[in-house]
Amino acid sequence: MTASSGAGPPVVVTGGAGAIGAVLSHVLAEAGHPVRVIDNLSSGRRDRLRDLEASGRLTFHASDLGRGGNIQEAFRGADAVWHLAANPNISLGTQNPRIDLENGTLAMAQVLEAARTSDVRRVFFASSSVVYGMPREFPTPESYGPLLPESQYGASKLASEALISAYCHSYGMRGWIFRFANIVGPGMTHGVIPDFLQKLRRDPTRLEVLGDGRQAKSYLWVTDCVSGMRRAEEASHDVVNVFNLGTEQQVAVRDIAQRVVAAFGGTARIEFTGGRQGWPGDIPLQLLSVSKILALGWRPRYDSSTAVDMAIATGRAELGL
Amino acid sequence: MTASSGAGPPVVVTGGAGAIGAVLSHVLAEAGHPVRVIDNLSSGRRDRLRDLEASGRLTFHASDLGRGGNIQEAFRGADAVWHLAANPNISLGTQNPRIDLENGTLAMAQVLEAARTSDVRRVFFASSSVVYGMPREFPTPESYGPLLPESQYGASKLASEALISAYCHSYGMRGWIFRFANIVGPGMTHGVIPDFLQKLRRDPTRLEVLGDGRQAKSYLWVTDCVSGMRRAEEASHDVVNVFNLGTEQQVAVRDIAQRVVAAFGGTARIEFTGGRQGWPGDIPLQLLSVSKILALGWRPRYDSSTAVDMAIATGRAELGL
Repeated sequence: MTASSGAGPPVVVTGGAGAIGAVLSHVLAEAGHPVRVIDNLSSGRRDRLRDLEASGRLTFHASDLGRGGNIQEAFRGADAVWHLAANPNISLGTQNPRIDLENGTLAMAQVLEAARTSDVRRVFFASSSVVYGMPREFPTPESYGPLLPESQYGASKLASEALISAYCHSYGMRGWIFRFANIVGPGMTHGVIPDFLQKLRRDPTRLEVLGDGRQAKSYLWVTDCVSGMRRAEEASHDVVNVFNLGTEQQVAVRDIAQRVVAAFGGTARIEFTGGRQGWPGDIPLQLLSVSKILALGWRPRYDSSTAVDMAIATGRAELGL
Repeated sequence: MTASSGAGPPVVVTGGAGAIGAVLSHVLAEAGHPVRVIDNLSSGRRDRLRDLEASGRLTFHASDLGRGGNIQEAFRGADAVWHLAANPNISLGTQNPRIDLENGTLAMAQVLEAARTSDVRRVFFASSSVVYGMPREFPTPESYGPLLPESQYGASKLASEALISAYCHSYGMRGWIFRFANIVGPGMTHGVIPDFLQKLRRDPTRLEVLGDGRQAKSYLWVTDCVSGMRRAEEASHDVVNVFNLGTEQQVAVRDIAQRVVAAFGGTARIEFTGGRQGWPGDIPLQLLSVSKILALGWRPRYDSSTAVDMAIATGRAELGL
């Protein structure tokens, strides 16, 4: 019996109803793992998992991580937890610091404590490039320091990394920390591409771009993100394994604006609000060194430019445009 | 009127009844700042502050940080907060991860939120060399990464650093983060020297040393620690300022054991439990690069060896030995 033909050990996926979590849940189910999703559906959508639920390969656990809900049942007998749940709205966290403290740091603490007390020994975590704050080194390697995140969201990601490291070293667990570039794909509700599409739907004559448009970041398609995490799971076995996950190219926000406008017929006027940051907490330049994950043999199928184009096309279709 | 002759703006010191906090509180009071101490007296002692309280230069606020107690009054009209409160017992945090989550991370979050809502714009924080985990570079610079702490205590320190960085960048505050080497001085209740002294008091014939005794760390006398923090306050004005604080020499645990035994007449047998780490979460090798703080003109008055000898003499006197 191969791993893909069923009967792998159960795994927990938090945020499994989210845009990344749902793809990961399908991949894990295909590999034969019974999947247990924990999600509060604050931004996730349960219909993404309906096929897996219907076929009995996935159980859904509604719970609000970070506020003490009971998640122990989902962990019983599981082999690993993939912790992807988070507040997806960085600006919201700046307005109310409690949001990322609860949905980020305290959620991670709850997940780790559930894992420890249930003897779940492997923890995979969706961290972010924002832990680097505004780095002075590009591409930014995993060894970059000091880590000075600029948003509450970033602080919660770094705090979560720290908790994983402490748990792994203290209690015989192992951890995989993935610092994501901008992940794009179907069903994304936050980020520059959904933002532009929604603005043009409201007013097709103009597109307001936050900042000077020179912000430039790397974009990774969601299936590449999941394949990178799975590759690291297979091939990397330190106590704590830290990987950047991204592509080797940047796309400027100005360029994305032009592509979105072109997709709408090219008539909208692009207006920049100015300033280096698009919004408080924005990291205007992001390019991660991915040599560590590339050395494991992983390659992204799509480069940043292709991922952006696919995200624009997908987003338009989803909005019925 | 000079700053030292009185009437500076009020400052908040959390953990101000602790061994470091009480020294800092005296220095700040001498510089003319009305001092407001927040302490739960779990390991601090209010008698350290009695002179300042009696002279009206210090007000004491009993509060348990991290569990939602009201601390707003202490912050009203203050100019800065020095956050030193912490669980001093790293091993205890390994037994119960809730302790450092509450006394470390959540305490920091509460302090920062009180500062933000009271318009207190400057935050000074006692972090620790343990944020580096087991570094592979000695002396370890502030730019070392990745930061993989091995204890819950270390995780709470790194999480606190992350929160400071996010608050400073999001809300117009400024932060000073001090990663301490082993700080020694009067009234210390935790660490290798009090541990050895208490063991020899119980049984003067033998001294059990946790680990192989080859653990080697740098030791900084408490007044040097405080002068280093004050120097950085004066001379460093980035949004977030990260400084290692220590000396440039290591002393081995084996050496400390011999010195303590010698101070007791030299007859006790030293027995090593073996193993690289003294206890779970112990970081056996620690030597911080202090070139960044030295470049500001700060010099420690005492080197590691002298600080250790002074700590042994002080600890003996305190135990009446």
